Amino acid sequence: MAAIPRTVPRTVPETMAGVHLTGQGGLDKLVYREDIPTPKPGPGEVLVQVAAAGVNNTDINTRIGWYSPDVKSGTTAEGGSEGLGDSEKDTGSWTGRLVFPRIQGADCVGRIAAVGPGVDPARIGERTVCEPYIVDPDDETGLESAGFLGSEYDGAFAQFMVLPARNAHRVSDDLDIPDPALATLPCSGGTAMNMLVMAGAKAGDLALVTGASGGVGTFLVQILKHIGAEVVAVASPSKFDAVKAVGADHLVDRTTPDLEAAVLEATGGRRVSLVADVVGGAQFPAMLALLRQGGRYVTAGAIAGPEVTLDLRTLYLKSLSFFGSTVYRRETFPKLMRFLEEGGIKPVVDSTAPLAEIRDAQTRFLAKTHVGSLVLIPPPVGAAD
Amino acid sequence: MAAIPRTVPRTVPETMAGVHLTGQGGLDKLVYREDIPTPKPGPGEVLVQVAAAGVNNTDINTRIGWYSPDVKSGTTAEGGSEGLGDSEKDTGSWTGRLVFPRIQGADCVGRIAAVGPGVDPARIGERTVCEPYIVDPDDETGLESAGFLGSEYDGAFAQFMVLPARNAHRVSDDLDIPDPALATLPCSGGTAMNMLVMAGAKAGDLALVTGASGGVGTFLVQILKHIGAEVVAVASPSKFDAVKAVGADHLVDRTTPDLEAAVLEATGGRRVSLVADVVGGAQFPAMLALLRQGGRYVTAGAIAGPEVTLDLRTLYLKSLSFFGSTVYRRETFPKLMRFLEEGGIKPVVDSTAPLAEIRDAQTRFLAKTHVGSLVLIPPPVGAAD
Repeated sequence: MAAIPRTVPRTVPETMAGVHLTGQGGLDKLVYREDIPTPKPGPGEVLVQVAAAGVNNTDINTRIGWYSPDVKSGTTAEGGSEGLGDSEKDTGSWTGRLVFPRIQGADCVGRIAAVGPGVDPARIGERTVCEPYIVDPDDETGLESAGFLGSEYDGAFAQFMVLPARNAHRVSDDLDIPDPALATLPCSGGTAMNMLVMAGAKAGDLALVTGASGGVGTFLVQILKHIGAEVVAVASPSKFDAVKAVGADHLVDRTTPDLEAAVLEATGGRRVSLVADVVGGAQFPAMLALLRQGGRYVTAGAIAGPEVTLDLRTLYLKSLSFFGSTVYRRETFPKLMRFLEEGGIKPVVDSTAPLAEIRDAQTRFLAKTHVGSLVLIPPPVGAAD
Repeated sequence: MAAIPRTVPRTVPETMAGVHLTGQGGLDKLVYREDIPTPKPGPGEVLVQVAAAGVNNTDINTRIGWYSPDVKSGTTAEGGSEGLGDSEKDTGSWTGRLVFPRIQGADCVGRIAAVGPGVDPARIGERTVCEPYIVDPDDETGLESAGFLGSEYDGAFAQFMVLPARNAHRVSDDLDIPDPALATLPCSGGTAMNMLVMAGAKAGDLALVTGASGGVGTFLVQILKHIGAEVVAVASPSKFDAVKAVGADHLVDRTTPDLEAAVLEATGGRRVSLVADVVGGAQFPAMLALLRQGGRYVTAGAIAGPEVTLDLRTLYLKSLSFFGSTVYRRETFPKLMRFLEEGGIKPVVDSTAPLAEIRDAQTRFLAKTHVGSLVLIPPPVGAAD
């Protein structure tokens, strides 16, 4: 088990190692430094010593400015041909404003190293998985106030990170899952769970999952199987074995020229009751065609392209519902942790890399040759005793 | 009060007047005849003597074959330039198959004139408003089995019509609303209610209603006001007074080149929590832009064009939900009748016309110069005693 030591440094160092995003653009905007001032927890906050931090599309999307409505292409290393500059520009994102330098990283697993005023000091030393959406507790749905670790707030690509104490969920030291595996949960696992909570996934659903070999996709397959649904997984044939291993019932080649026909062949002609999509793009109309009357479509990403053609007749003549998932509902993260403890979710880590090698890691991530998640490991804290 | 006599003919005539749709195509496919065999109620069915039958877009869409995915344009009298033939072709519709000749007409108000085996003969003489979706009672959601009056089943453009007894909802003879006004309820009122049921409309919603002067639109405005929502109505300025009269709080010109700016000006910069849309078309992206975080979009039609561009990022980054409404949920029609009895809905009739003048009536309907509904009145039954 690759856990960090069960103790945290008695004295938190004044500076830390971490990765600064210095502006929007290519990989060169990611700068590894060892002289970043260590943040201090304010009232109601904790300081977490990061043990492992997952790599996600969202970090890359934020870096390349993909959340700007001006960008029409899919996710690539350099943001396509949009010529995004390196000035401090507004992201056009859904909330708040991205300022530079920013420490990215939405997935944090670690140990509480210090607490701010109002937080029980007994929490120091606690093993924690961090919920990445930071919301005003007085905001009922959280939608208006939500900010995201690594976007509106500094995140986990560093030795230390500050966040509200309520976002740091306790994990038992006895839970026999290594920290890098847990570090795949907050963003990918949370997104998958939130998608399925929103779409009301249930036993008996026949569900189509796109991008099934990716971070969110492998959790979608596992959660759907855990609740008793039947899963048609769309993935690259080179990853069929891995997707089958996490539970998929049927496998469909993502490069098929006719997704509708391929899925119907796999299901024996049955249309699906649920589509859980993180791909979007040109196959979107086929996904809707595959839905039966009253079917639900839920999305949390569109790596194959965000602009799609929608025939409103398909939406209403089949009484469909669509759901867009970002900010987690209140029940999502606790449900995710419960499924984890029940053994219904087994996080899949493709590999780990030192935090300093973030550029190489993101390049491999975008090459889509991995199954499951890539996880970055910050260097040990020198001042640890 | 333009009610039919409180009695029904003791003997139902062997033949009746009605309008045959002889094939898909233009207005010439609607043929008024007086020699149509009167249908006979089967087990569990009733025969209704039609007092009034509303005109709807759906009748025209079915006639011109607009429900076929090959059609990309909006609703016009002759089906645009798609060159639809007059052969017995499949409609490509959401369920079943359209066969000719077909009697159209989804909105039926009348009186039960005869009952089939298994139906209490005491219902003969009962005043009734007919729910237009006919479903298998064993089909929980009704979505897989649903057929529609005037499409999969003969409808109300005739002196008599047969349908399942459970679809014939009783209306008190004492309810002081004339039959032509009630005849605007089943399709337009039911659709409006079902849209708002699906989208979870509630007190405090700030709702944008498109096509607010139309049949569905006027009911959307009324129902939203009845439940305590605030309404921004999009309509033609020539109809502002009428839309205001049914309760709209804010009015926006439907021809505005910038719907987003116009609505924000009307609301003092507030974005909406709900869009109830029957128009679709080029203004679809603006409608989504107007939704706040967590907003809901519900559609039941797309007279301005069904094919729209959707940016999936808008759907998921704002945590939106979309709902398509056709087949009514079980609670929809009873709720509609309750709102009617509470006085929360006051059906608006633009004018009535004899059934024989159906071509002129549909031409006027498509000219969009009316507010509220157009209603056709079949000739009196000659054999009445």
